[in-house]
Amino acid sequence: MADTMTEKAVDITPIQQFLYCRTPDAWLEYALSDLETLLIDHAHCEKKAAATAVKLMFRYPEHIDLLKKLSQLIREEVLHFEQVLEFIEQQNIKYRAIKPSRYAAGLHQFASKDEPQRLIDGLIIGGIIEARSCERFHALVPHLKRDYPELAKYYRFLLKSESRHFMDYIELAKQYSEDPIDERLEFFLQKEQELIESTDPLFRFHSGVPV
Amino acid sequence: MADTMTEKAVDITPIQQFLYCRTPDAWLEYALSDLETLLIDHAHCEKKAAATAVKLMFRYPEHIDLLKKLSQLIREEVLHFEQVLEFIEQQNIKYRAIKPSRYAAGLHQFASKDEPQRLIDGLIIGGIIEARSCERFHALVPHLKRDYPELAKYYRFLLKSESRHFMDYIELAKQYSEDPIDERLEFFLQKEQELIESTDPLFRFHSGVPV
Repeated sequence: MADTMTEKAVDITPIQQFLYCRTPDAWLEYALSDLETLLIDHAHCEKKAAATAVKLMFRYPEHIDLLKKLSQLIREEVLHFEQVLEFIEQQNIKYRAIKPSRYAAGLHQFASKDEPQRLIDGLIIGGIIEARSCERFHALVPHLKRDYPELAKYYRFLLKSESRHFMDYIELAKQYSEDPIDERLEFFLQKEQELIESTDPLFRFHSGVPV
Repeated sequence: MADTMTEKAVDITPIQQFLYCRTPDAWLEYALSDLETLLIDHAHCEKKAAATAVKLMFRYPEHIDLLKKLSQLIREEVLHFEQVLEFIEQQNIKYRAIKPSRYAAGLHQFASKDEPQRLIDGLIIGGIIEARSCERFHALVPHLKRDYPELAKYYRFLLKSESRHFMDYIELAKQYSEDPIDERLEFFLQKEQELIESTDPLFRFHSGVPV
């Protein structure tokens, strides 16, 4: 896997400034104590990201630029899925289905049911999820370095592609929206902040503050 | 795209022997007279193949070998989607949603609703569809050479990966089945032959004999 990784640092500042809050310390502490759930859910998230992009490809066959971007994104997400699965096996963890986090559904419930807003909202939500993933990888890296140097290296590598996905989604939202997306973006970023900063009974990659 | 292609010939004989019939000449003639529909539907098929594989990944999280194979397959199918889209644009064809062929649904309707046979049937059907795609690419190539040399070259290249997908699906069906799959394979191959050799009002990549 080493050849697919790069050591070049990614500037995380624009993503940290984009999101309305940082990952709470309590989540980080919990994550480091339950790496098994973190890794399994991370693999699920990569698979889910690919599935969501596939769904968008079927819903909007007329948007060629969207299809091309989503197609590239799917290739990367499933590759990441395979790579996380590799880590899971290396750690002798049994990959299995687990209940998903409230996070993605908690954002999608506010998406418009009517086009063209439905598409714009879907893209904004996609961008926010990628941004949060990025922010969490970055927050995890320094804590993983000592005991899990390979995983730390891999998460640093993932930062790069996930930050590109974040940009792609937001750019697509701007491209396909007739009006500025700022207000809608603000709305979803506020909802996201609530999901991250409120207590959450289920620990997952995108969960809130552990109980 | 050239760097991803190979000139090395693929032995199509095992695939031709696996399927119960060859592509009828009438289909080939029609296809060459309606390359626009052929290309658009081909792109749809690549997208559909990826979507079907994603669905299987969600349905069977406990089968690690299956997940790995499907994940690789998805990466290739969406790459092919992007490549066919490139051809479509080069030919100044407008990519759009079109009514799907009766073919895949015509096979899936006979799949078991009960596990574990549902999985085995799904894998067998996947394998048969890949085999037919392969056989059709091979049948098209000599007719495309003169007027569409790039497309002929690309279809020759696709033969290779699609024949690998065919093998992967059939191997997975054998791996996850407790009993030999021969009888079930025979059943679906007969159904497939009927779909290919009977008249079909809608011309598509996997359609029957054009009316």
